[in-house]
Amino acid sequence: MPVLVMKFGGTSVATLDRIRRAAKRVGVEVSKGYDVIVIVSAMSGKTNELVGWVNETSPLYDAREYDAVVSSGENVTAGLMALTLQEMDVPARSWQGWQVPVKTTSAHSAARIEDIPPENIMAKFGEGMRVAVVAGFQGVSPEGRITTLGRGGSDTTAVAFAAAFKAERCDIYTDVDGVYTTDPRMCDKARKIDKIAFEEMLELASLGAKVLQTRSVELAMRYKVKLRVLSSFEEQSDDAGTLVCDEDEIMESNVVSGIAYSRDEAKMTLVSVADRPGIAAAIFGPLSDAGINVDMIIQNISEDGRTDMTFSCPTEQVARAQKAMDEAKSAGEINFQDLVADTNVSKVSAVGIGMRSQSGVAAKMFKTLSDEGINIKVIATSEIKISVLIDRKYMELAVQALHDAFELDKAT
Amino acid sequence: MPVLVMKFGGTSVATLDRIRRAAKRVGVEVSKGYDVIVIVSAMSGKTNELVGWVNETSPLYDAREYDAVVSSGENVTAGLMALTLQEMDVPARSWQGWQVPVKTTSAHSAARIEDIPPENIMAKFGEGMRVAVVAGFQGVSPEGRITTLGRGGSDTTAVAFAAAFKAERCDIYTDVDGVYTTDPRMCDKARKIDKIAFEEMLELASLGAKVLQTRSVELAMRYKVKLRVLSSFEEQSDDAGTLVCDEDEIMESNVVSGIAYSRDEAKMTLVSVADRPGIAAAIFGPLSDAGINVDMIIQNISEDGRTDMTFSCPTEQVARAQKAMDEAKSAGEINFQDLVADTNVSKVSAVGIGMRSQSGVAAKMFKTLSDEGINIKVIATSEIKISVLIDRKYMELAVQALHDAFELDKAT
Repeated sequence: MPVLVMKFGGTSVATLDRIRRAAKRVGVEVSKGYDVIVIVSAMSGKTNELVGWVNETSPLYDAREYDAVVSSGENVTAGLMALTLQEMDVPARSWQGWQVPVKTTSAHSAARIEDIPPENIMAKFGEGMRVAVVAGFQGVSPEGRITTLGRGGSDTTAVAFAAAFKAERCDIYTDVDGVYTTDPRMCDKARKIDKIAFEEMLELASLGAKVLQTRSVELAMRYKVKLRVLSSFEEQSDDAGTLVCDEDEIMESNVVSGIAYSRDEAKMTLVSVADRPGIAAAIFGPLSDAGINVDMIIQNISEDGRTDMTFSCPTEQVARAQKAMDEAKSAGEINFQDLVADTNVSKVSAVGIGMRSQSGVAAKMFKTLSDEGINIKVIATSEIKISVLIDRKYMELAVQALHDAFELDKAT
Repeated sequence: MPVLVMKFGGTSVATLDRIRRAAKRVGVEVSKGYDVIVIVSAMSGKTNELVGWVNETSPLYDAREYDAVVSSGENVTAGLMALTLQEMDVPARSWQGWQVPVKTTSAHSAARIEDIPPENIMAKFGEGMRVAVVAGFQGVSPEGRITTLGRGGSDTTAVAFAAAFKAERCDIYTDVDGVYTTDPRMCDKARKIDKIAFEEMLELASLGAKVLQTRSVELAMRYKVKLRVLSSFEEQSDDAGTLVCDEDEIMESNVVSGIAYSRDEAKMTLVSVADRPGIAAAIFGPLSDAGINVDMIIQNISEDGRTDMTFSCPTEQVARAQKAMDEAKSAGEINFQDLVADTNVSKVSAVGIGMRSQSGVAAKMFKTLSDEGINIKVIATSEIKISVLIDRKYMELAVQALHDAFELDKAT
């Protein structure tokens, strides 16, 4: 029988009633003839409670013990979901990560899945079991200790199972009904997207549209796993939600598919840096070592052997970035006059695979912002994305103006 | 290094503060030179919450899923205890049942421990780890599924580890400071016992002195594990609490060591039963099949081929016992005129290994009760115990009178 993977996030299993509602959705797919693998998160709030206890007990905790404690929430939901399905006469059982086993690296609290041998679960499907309920977010290390995949890791668990079991589709049930052209709280013309390409979803995910964990989209792209994002709180039709898939499966695509934003960015400028071969490495090496997520980088034209180097990073990392640069200066690795931080900026991006074949997108974006009197501070582009840093106070205006300009309120 | 097992119950690990207090006790034993195995229960209230969820989800639950859900509370405590010890610079790690592994039967929710291979933990002790924190109450079945040992199973886990690791002693930390000559709430002259024999503890435990789970005492007796019961809420000296040990280690023992009681007993009488060979089997077979815990049994002198048969059982089982007897009558297996249930009785028992060698205990007990005007309804005796059923309203009076009569307020 074909296999379907269904993943339910914390809000979708927050109470026994919600677990029942989710189980009914599973029952519908079983009655269509699927063998179903259900991936569950912890009941919402539980993981935070456990993380709180660990932090209070040991601020610099042993990540192996953190994982042993924090993974327990998913085990509870998995057992309760299996019992709920059994009550509905659906043959089901729960599996903890080590029982499958979900083999991961030993990088505790940020482990990567290395292998999911399908034999054990497939054997049970062969014996008549119809649903395997698997505790998400967790696995087992080569040393036999429990690992977790990091926050949002249940999405990754779901995609990895879909790949390992060659599932027809991986349905991610969440508290929103799909991926939108932009954040509906910021722009009331935002429209749900029916189909979106992996690459676009990746850019949207990493730009702050937090519907799916970035790693899960990467994994889905690599293994060509069809991902569907849909709401667990609404009646569902077969084409509900948003399908994230290969671009070949999208007949017609907009030039721009969505407008993403990231509110808390900071613009950092190293003033009057000595310009010499290797200077970029000398700057961004220490920043990388300090764990700074540098996003955009621009270098001004050099004058008299000195230049200005500007980069952006999340606001919360500014202090750490400053410390790293000051230390590099003290160590004589780089030489600059001043480091100026502008923490009042936001990033707005237009994303779309249509950009590859169509020119003029950047020009249209810049003109739209200019018409609204918004000054662009930094520009960065990729094949399918154009991002700008602007003053934070203009962010909402920029998102709305760009959404209008690219006519995202109209279906393809 | 010698191994010590320390077990902390739910109230002793109910909060992070209490876990810290327990960890300090562990630290003291480590500093004395012990390698310590700590067995932890779930934080108090957690297991009840999980059991509640399972019952609400599925009243006739799959015990395998029940075990998967309910065992998670101990995993949380084990991780938090290991982290707390690490914060105190004590090398420690947590172990879940399947990791040790604690091998059990497949009798889910009432599994029995079959084997605890000590190799994995001993290897870690050899590498410098000083404390293995083990989640109590759980194990793994031959099929690789999680099992639990039934309520109070953490005591049994502790004794089984003490036996497997040939521990010098097994310290059970709880919310009382030891075993008393009787319930202090019922008799203010009750005195803590310093040493008690396994056999006596077994009788006291099964008679309702709920300090230790009966199975754990049986196991300790079989493997000669020295058990110490002590409070986790008081400063401890080396001879704190009560030592439960082989009778050989008790120099002088009282004839009677303790007075136990069981409040909610019922006295059932089958009136005018046809007396024939095999009649007892015909009565107590169906009762056993119905899961009735029959305790005392008396048969009156036969008259005209008919007799009265009286037995006692817990009050809550009366309805089920009546049903079983009525069905046996309908099936023609037994014949009786009437079944009379007296649910206003309690059981009071005097327990002591000294009874084996000293006569007159029963006579003293009966006279004491008679002097107080208390009528004895049923009597049962074993080698080291005399039990009587009396009207419930006299229970407290009987306990106090017997405690005085056997001079239990005086140390040996």
